Amino acid sequence: MGKSLINIALFGLGRIGQMHAENLFKHKSFNLRCIYDIDKKKIQKLSKVYNCDGIKNPIIAFKDKSIDVILIATSTSTHLRFLTQAVKYKKIVFCEKPLDLNLKKIDKCKKLIQKYNPKIQLGFNRRYDPNHNGLKKFLKKGKIGRLEKIIITSRDPAPPSFQYLKKSGGIFKDMMIHDFDLARFYLDDKDEFNTVFATGSNMQNRTFDRLKDFELATCVLKSKKGVQCIITNSRHCSFGYDQRVELFGNKGMLISGNKKENDIETYNSKSTNNKSLLMNFFVERYWEAYKNQLDDLSKMKNEKFKPLAGFEDGRISILLAEKAIISTKSKKFEKIK
Amino acid sequence: MGKSLINIALFGLGRIGQMHAENLFKHKSFNLRCIYDIDKKKIQKLSKVYNCDGIKNPIIAFKDKSIDVILIATSTSTHLRFLTQAVKYKKIVFCEKPLDLNLKKIDKCKKLIQKYNPKIQLGFNRRYDPNHNGLKKFLKKGKIGRLEKIIITSRDPAPPSFQYLKKSGGIFKDMMIHDFDLARFYLDDKDEFNTVFATGSNMQNRTFDRLKDFELATCVLKSKKGVQCIITNSRHCSFGYDQRVELFGNKGMLISGNKKENDIETYNSKSTNNKSLLMNFFVERYWEAYKNQLDDLSKMKNEKFKPLAGFEDGRISILLAEKAIISTKSKKFEKIK
Amino acid sequence: MGKSLINIALFGLGRIGQMHAENLFKHKSFNLRCIYDIDKKKIQKLSKVYNCDGIKNPIIAFKDKSIDVILIATSTSTHLRFLTQAVKYKKIVFCEKPLDLNLKKIDKCKKLIQKYNPKIQLGFNRRYDPNHNGLKKFLKKGKIGRLEKIIITSRDPAPPSFQYLKKSGGIFKDMMIHDFDLARFYLDDKDEFNTVFATGSNMQNRTFDRLKDFELATCVLKSKKGVQCIITNSRHCSFGYDQRVELFGNKGMLISGNKKENDIETYNSKSTNNKSLLMNFFVERYWEAYKNQLDDLSKMKNEKFKPLAGFEDGRISILLAEKAIISTKSKKFEKIK
Amino acid sequence: MGKSLINIALFGLGRIGQMHAENLFKHKSFNLRCIYDIDKKKIQKLSKVYNCDGIKNPIIAFKDKSIDVILIATSTSTHLRFLTQAVKYKKIVFCEKPLDLNLKKIDKCKKLIQKYNPKIQLGFNRRYDPNHNGLKKFLKKGKIGRLEKIIITSRDPAPPSFQYLKKSGGIFKDMMIHDFDLARFYLDDKDEFNTVFATGSNMQNRTFDRLKDFELATCVLKSKKGVQCIITNSRHCSFGYDQRVELFGNKGMLISGNKKENDIETYNSKSTNNKSLLMNFFVERYWEAYKNQLDDLSKMKNEKFKPLAGFEDGRISILLAEKAIISTKSKKFEKIK
Repeated sequence: MGKSLINIALFGLGRIGQMHAENLFKHKSFNLRCIYDIDKKKIQKLSKVYNCDGIKNPIIAFKDKSIDVILIATSTSTHLRFLTQAVKYKKIVFCEKPLDLNLKKIDKCKKLIQKYNPKIQLGFNRRYDPNHNGLKKFLKKGKIGRLEKIIITSRDPAPPSFQYLKKSGGIFKDMMIHDFDLARFYLDDKDEFNTVFATGSNMQNRTFDRLKDFELATCVLKSKKGVQCIITNSRHCSFGYDQRVELFGNKGMLISGNKKENDIETYNSKSTNNKSLLMNFFVERYWEAYKNQLDDLSKMKNEKFKPLAGFEDGRISILLAEKAIISTKSKKFEKIK
Repeated sequence: MGKSLINIALFGLGRIGQMHAENLFKHKSFNLRCIYDIDKKKIQKLSKVYNCDGIKNPIIAFKDKSIDVILIATSTSTHLRFLTQAVKYKKIVFCEKPLDLNLKKIDKCKKLIQKYNPKIQLGFNRRYDPNHNGLKKFLKKGKIGRLEKIIITSRDPAPPSFQYLKKSGGIFKDMMIHDFDLARFYLDDKDEFNTVFATGSNMQNRTFDRLKDFELATCVLKSKKGVQCIITNSRHCSFGYDQRVELFGNKGMLISGNKKENDIETYNSKSTNNKSLLMNFFVERYWEAYKNQLDDLSKMKNEKFKPLAGFEDGRISILLAEKAIISTKSKKFEKIK
Repeated sequence: MGKSLINIALFGLGRIGQMHAENLFKHKSFNLRCIYDIDKKKIQKLSKVYNCDGIKNPIIAFKDKSIDVILIATSTSTHLRFLTQAVKYKKIVFCEKPLDLNLKKIDKCKKLIQKYNPKIQLGFNRRYDPNHNGLKKFLKKGKIGRLEKIIITSRDPAPPSFQYLKKSGGIFKDMMIHDFDLARFYLDDKDEFNTVFATGSNMQNRTFDRLKDFELATCVLKSKKGVQCIITNSRHCSFGYDQRVELFGNKGMLISGNKKENDIETYNSKSTNNKSLLMNFFVERYWEAYKNQLDDLSKMKNEKFKPLAGFEDGRISILLAEKAIISTKSKKFEKIK
Repeated sequence: MGKSLINIALFGLGRIGQMHAENLFKHKSFNLRCIYDIDKKKIQKLSKVYNCDGIKNPIIAFKDKSIDVILIATSTSTHLRFLTQAVKYKKIVFCEKPLDLNLKKIDKCKKLIQKYNPKIQLGFNRRYDPNHNGLKKFLKKGKIGRLEKIIITSRDPAPPSFQYLKKSGGIFKDMMIHDFDLARFYLDDKDEFNTVFATGSNMQNRTFDRLKDFELATCVLKSKKGVQCIITNSRHCSFGYDQRVELFGNKGMLISGNKKENDIETYNSKSTNNKSLLMNFFVERYWEAYKNQLDDLSKMKNEKFKPLAGFEDGRISILLAEKAIISTKSKKFEKIK
C-alpha cells in the first residue's frame, strides 16, 4: 500500500488549510508529508498532530522529488507565486480560490506556465457537492430538457471581520466567485456567459460603505445560447448558510436545496413543520464536497485525468467578477471580452 | 333549468345541518325546499336565510310528492326512525353518520327496509376528500402494487363538550368510526376486516374517566387477505386537526397529508420551514369533501348509480366499533362475526 | 337583504369576464344586474344563465342610476374609455389589468378623471391571494425585520395563442406587470422602485422572435431604500403554473410557495415524495384571490374605504414595464422618472 | 497522545464487524489492537488492512492486560459466552444486539456476571442517531409536553437470505427489537411498557410461511403511565430503508424522518417535488449513529459513565420480543412480567 500513496505538501494552515490537513490525514490515497505556514508555531504544533514534517521554507517541498502534489491554501496574494514555482518543479497543484484578485496577473501567469503543461486543480468545492453536482448529472441525462435558467441563492450566516473584508476583494471576487463558477459548471461545453449585469446595496452595516463594498448583491448573466442566470448574495442570513440552486429547463426543473443541522420536525400550538437552522457554514455544509475534491486530486497523477475545475475556471470566474464590479458602476449590461 | 332541480328536505339544523343548508343552497342541482328541526326558532330564522319552507312536522316532507330527497342531520337517536319513514315514502335518503349507536337496532332496520329497495347515501365525507379519495384512485391504478398496510392518524383539535361526549357513544363509535370506514374504502372489493384489537388511554382529562371513555385510542385491524390496518386517534391536538392516511404496498407508498391554514413558510434565527397550524376542524378541512358528497347525492335519481358509502357501510362501521370496544375489555384480537 | 345588495354591471364576457360573472352571481353582496359584450350571442346565452339583463349598449348601464358598480373586463384597448365614462357617471369602477398598454394615454386619463374624485379598484388579483397577502401581513408584523430582497418567480404553463400575443403588449406589459405590482405591494409605504434592469431571451419558440417579444424574461429592480427585487418569468412551464414569492429580511425569510392539484405524495422504486403537478392556471390557482377581490369591491361604497390596488397602481405597473422594455434595448439600469 | 489510546479487540468480521473495524481504525481514541473471527482468511487479510494482530483464539485478547475493551460482533449464539468471559477478565464490553435469542439464557448470564460489576454497552445504534436522539432531547426540554404516543415505522429494503432468516429468531427478535429498544428510550425514567399486542402477516414471500416467520408485523405497547406505542415493520420496502419516529404529546409533535440518497428535487411534466430514494440500508443510514456509539464506548473507562444502552436494555428488548411472539399466537394483549 505504502508505495502507491501520493505524497503531498500543504501550504497554509488557516481555517481552510487545517480542514485540508485533517481530510488529507484521513484520506486513503494521500500521505501528508510536510506542512508550511508563515506562522512557525502553527507548523510546530500541527506537524505533531499530523505526524509530518514542518518546513520553514517552501523551497524544501519543491525540491523534494518524492513530493507529488502541492496544496496551496495560503493567503490569496501568494497563490500565483507558489503555483508558478510548483509548476516549474513539475508538481501537481491544488490551489484554493481565488487564483488572485487581479486578472492581469492571472493572465500573465497563464502565459508563463503554459509551456510546462501544468496539472492544476482549483478549489471550487461546490462542483463536488453531491447535490449541486447531482444537478449536473441530471441535466446531462436530459431530465429537464434544454437548460434555460440558472438561479443561485448564496447567503453567508454573518459578515467576516473588517480585517478579512479589507483584503477580500469585495463581495463579487470573494463570495459570488463561487456562484459564477457553479453557474458556468451547468452550461453546455460549448456555451459561455457573454454579458453580465450587477448591482449591490448596503442597508444595514456601514462597514461595507466604508470599504466601498456591498452587503447585498444581485447579478444577471446571459450566455451565448440565451441561458439566463440570476445570482443573489447576502453577507448575513439569520437562519444559517443559505445555499440553493434551481435549474429550469423546457422540460422541467431541478432544485438543490439547503442542508439542515438535523432533520427533526416540530409541531406545536403556534406552528407546524418547524425544522432546525441551516448548517452554519462552509466547513459543515460542504464537508462531503471537500472530501470528493480530494478524491479528484488523488487521480491527477493519471496523465489524462481532468479535475472538475482547473486554472482556466479560476481565471474566468475572476473575469466575471471584474465585469460585475464594472457593471455596478457603469450600470450597464457589460460584455465579457 | 328549474325542472331538473332535485327538491330536498333537510332535517336537523345543528352545526353540520347548517353547513349542509349552505352547501345545498349554493348547489346547482338542488332546490332546498324545506327544513325541519326540533328548535322552532332555528326553523324560522333559517327558512328566511335560505328562502325555503320551515316545517313543524317531518311528515309534511314525507307526504310531499315533489320532494325527492330527505337529508337527515338530526341527533343520532332519530336517524333510523327518519330513515325508515323516508324509505317507506320512496324518498332518496342521505343520512349522517353514525346510523345509530346500537348495532341490533341497525340490523332490525336493515331487515325492515330491505323490501323497499332503498336508495341511501351515508355521510362518510372522508371518502369524498380529493386527497383521501385520490389515494383510492392511485391504488386502483396499481401505483403501489398490492396493498399491505393502511395507517390512519386522526386527531381532533380539542375534546367536545361534556354534554356531547355523554351521548356520543364513545371515541370508537363517534370518532374512529370515520377511520374504520375510510380503512374499508381502501380494501379490495372482495376483502373485509375480520379481526380487530383496540386499546385506549386517558392521561390528561379526567372527564373521560368519568364517562368510561378514552381520550387516546389505538386500533389494529387485519383483513381476510392479510392487510394490516393501524388507526390512532386523539381527542386533542395542539397544532390543529391532524388527518393523515398512509397506504403501503409491495411497490410503493402513498401519503395523503394534512391541510394547513395557509402555505407560507417562515425562516428565522430560531428555526426554518415553519408553517401555519393545520386547518382547525372538519368544516374547514373537509369543505371540498362535503361539496363532492352532495354531487354524488345529486346523481342518485339515476337508478343504477351507487354512492361511495351506503347503509351497509354505516352498519359495518358500527360493527367494527362495537368489536373494538369489546376488545378494550377482553384485551383480545376480536373476530368480526 | 335585497335592499343592501350592490347592483353591478359587467362589461366583457371573455374567459376572465365569465369567471367574474360566476363569482358575482354567487357573491352575497352583489346583484349582477346586467352584462355587456361585443358578442351578442354571448350576451344572450349568459344573461339567461345568470338571470340578468343583456344590454347591447354600455350607455344603458351608465345611465341606469340603480347601478352602483361597473366591472370592466373587456379588451385592453377599451379599458380607459369605459373607465372614464363610468367615472363621469359617478360609478364605482373595477377595471381589469392593464389599464392600457400606452403610458401617455393613462397619464392623460389620470388628469381627466381627477376632478371626479374617482373610486377605482384595479384587478391585481395577486394582492388578494391568501398566501401572497399573508406575506405582507407577516412583513408588517416584523417577522423578518427590515425587508431587503423580493424574489418573484412566475411561469405560465404554456404560451398564449399568436392572436393573443400580437395584442398583448409583450411579456413585460402582459405578464410581468402582475409581478411588478406584487413587488411594489411589499415595499414600505414611503418606498418606491427607482431603477430597473431587464433582459429577455427566446430559446425555443420562434413566434416570439417574429413578434419581437420574449419567452423568458428577467428583471432586477432597486428601490430608493435599497431593496433589491428579482423577477423571473417564463411563458412555458412543463409542471404547471409556477407562482412563488420569497421575501428576505435581516431577521428572516418568508416563502409563499406553489399550489398543487392535490396533496398526495407517492413513493416508489424510482423516487420518493412525488407530488402532483401545480394547479394549471390563474382561474384555479387564484380562485380565492378573485373572491377576496370582490369582497373588497363590495366595500367601496364606503366613502373612506381604499382597495388594495387602485388606478395609480395600474399606472405605475405600466411605467415599470415601459422602462423594463427600454432597458432590454439600452442594456442599462434605467431610472424610473 | 499514544498513551491515552484505548486498546480494543474486535471479535467478528462479518458485515457489521468490518464496519466497526473501519470506524475504530479512524477513531481518535481507539487503537485497534487485535481482531478475531472463525474465518482465518478474513483475519489474515484484515489484520493487514488495519495494521493489527490477527488472533486465532479469543483467549489471547482476554489474557492481554493491555487490552481495555472487547467488541463482540460475532454470531448471536456466541454473544453471551464471549461477554461473560470478557466480564470475568475485567474488560469493558461492547456487544452487538441481540444479547441472545433466549431470554432464559440472558437471565442466567445476568445473575452470573452481576458480582463483577460489569461495564457493558449494547449495540442499539439508533439511540445514537442524531435525529432519533434529538427527539429525546427535545422531549426532555418539554417541547411537546407530556409524551402520549410513540409511532415507529421501520422497513427494510429487502428480506435477508434464507440462511440468515433461519437463524434470525424471527422478525420480532431480529428486526423489531431495535424499535422496542428505541420506544423504551423515549419513556420517562420511571415508566416501562407493561403490555404488548402483536400480529403478523405474510402476503408475498412464501419463505416466511415456511419459517413460521412474518414479512409484515405490527405491535401495540402500552406503558404503566398510559403511553401508547405503535410499531410497524416490513421486510421489504420498494423505496429504500424506511425509518421514521413520531412522538405525540399534549403540547405538540416531533418527527424524525427519513434520510435520502441526495436532496435534489425534480419537477417535470408528470410530477413535482420528486426526491431520491431513501438511503439503502443501516450502514449508510446510521453511519453517524455508529460513530457516536463508539464515542460513548470511548468514555466507558470513566467509572461513572453510563452508555445510552446497556445489558438490561438488551434483556428487556428480548423480553418484549418474546411477549410479542406469544401475543401473535394467543391473540391477546400480553402482560410484561
